[in-house]
Amino acid sequence: MTEIPESHPRAASLRLRKKMIAGFQSGLATEAGLLAHGRGEAFDYLLGEKTQPFAESAIAATSAMLLLAEFPVMSVNGNAASLATEQISRLSQVLPHIAIEVNLFYRSEERIAGIVDHLKANGVRNVLSADPANCQHLPGIESHRAMLHPQGMGQSDCVLVALEDGDRCEALVNSGRKVISIDLNPLSRTAQATQVTIVDELTRAMSRLCEVIASDLAAKAGELQHRIDAFENSLILNAAARRIREGADQRPQD
Amino acid sequence: MTEIPESHPRAASLRLRKKMIAGFQSGLATEAGLLAHGRGEAFDYLLGEKTQPFAESAIAATSAMLLLAEFPVMSVNGNAASLATEQISRLSQVLPHIAIEVNLFYRSEERIAGIVDHLKANGVRNVLSADPANCQHLPGIESHRAMLHPQGMGQSDCVLVALEDGDRCEALVNSGRKVISIDLNPLSRTAQATQVTIVDELTRAMSRLCEVIASDLAAKAGELQHRIDAFENSLILNAAARRIREGADQRPQD
Repeated sequence: MTEIPESHPRAASLRLRKKMIAGFQSGLATEAGLLAHGRGEAFDYLLGEKTQPFAESAIAATSAMLLLAEFPVMSVNGNAASLATEQISRLSQVLPHIAIEVNLFYRSEERIAGIVDHLKANGVRNVLSADPANCQHLPGIESHRAMLHPQGMGQSDCVLVALEDGDRCEALVNSGRKVISIDLNPLSRTAQATQVTIVDELTRAMSRLCEVIASDLAAKAGELQHRIDAFENSLILNAAARRIREGADQRPQD
Repeated sequence: MTEIPESHPRAASLRLRKKMIAGFQSGLATEAGLLAHGRGEAFDYLLGEKTQPFAESAIAATSAMLLLAEFPVMSVNGNAASLATEQISRLSQVLPHIAIEVNLFYRSEERIAGIVDHLKANGVRNVLSADPANCQHLPGIESHRAMLHPQGMGQSDCVLVALEDGDRCEALVNSGRKVISIDLNPLSRTAQATQVTIVDELTRAMSRLCEVIASDLAAKAGELQHRIDAFENSLILNAAARRIREGADQRPQD
């Protein structure tokens, strides 16, 4: 692809597309990951390609939940590693007790190792990945996708999942964990299953999340808990679906 | 990917995904093509994954236009060749005076040759591709994307474009040709630029188009012309955008 001019109205989206293709070409992501990213692009287009108020609310609740969690973990797949390395690194710096666990839908040892190396090389701290020889199993999920690292998601009380599939999200919720998803389709099973859903593009949402966490570091636990108690995910999902309907009206033709 | 059970509620969509990945792996389509297919999947999901009444109307007008055209041409890219070989073959059989012209956004001689061979091997008739040494140029478009085959789109009065980008579609319309697009996003520049827009998934739309053409073969020219005169594309685009809005309300969670 050629250079994307800064002035292009959809420059950010086109830059992410380039990152996604680079991630695929270096073996981090799969063909199915490229297709999934395309689906996300379409929803983001309808959402107006910016962080909407319903996403801001969910990000504020997420910050509080991650700060109050005993063992917070972010679950990272090939697309997240391709797109949001910088933001994942920042999250692992601003929230030193979070673990970053690599979990793939299409698992291969080689791809796991490549993603782990890529994250570490980019300054991500506490990178884990479950190993068949040393893992717990998530009930209700088949084979390798059930693997949880004993010091990561296995012991976690609060999991942030990015671009995750519906089956695994539902199983994580059913396991009693608090689960936050970042997902551009508010109608998806993932978005509907999790206690908090950030309907926003991954890199925008995570950049904003890191800012909010940094400013929440000094907040009192009671204040953060109050924010969580006041949060209603069904209102968020309704607002996001409404924004998509409006997007189908108002979106400029491009 | 594993086998897709016939009973899966979205089996057709998953089968197309497999075809698209196979097309990529055999060099017909590109990474950007996989991303574009993903965007289409999201719109199709919101459209309910079936041929809607607005698409039926556009298909009826398309049948009439192709039958009345002097030199109809279908423009085929890597995604169309990956997904709809069978339907393109059927179209070239049922409408013997149509030419099938391969035109790529990311052109390479190797990929052109691969697609031409793939189409011919699957029974597609009248396959053409413009050659730098023997082509006309479409005004308003840069470089190789402007190339038209002199016995294909160069002399064509009516072009059916599948999954085409907005720039080229607008240039084709501006050249005075009648242009029909098959595009899942009714808000896209392609959908908005063309005289007739079939807002439907490519293989469904083309299967239905071949049926309609077959039953129109005996129709009188005056009757077909009347159908074209009565067609209003703006109503089609409005109905499709409305369906997407409803899709964001009613789509089952899957």
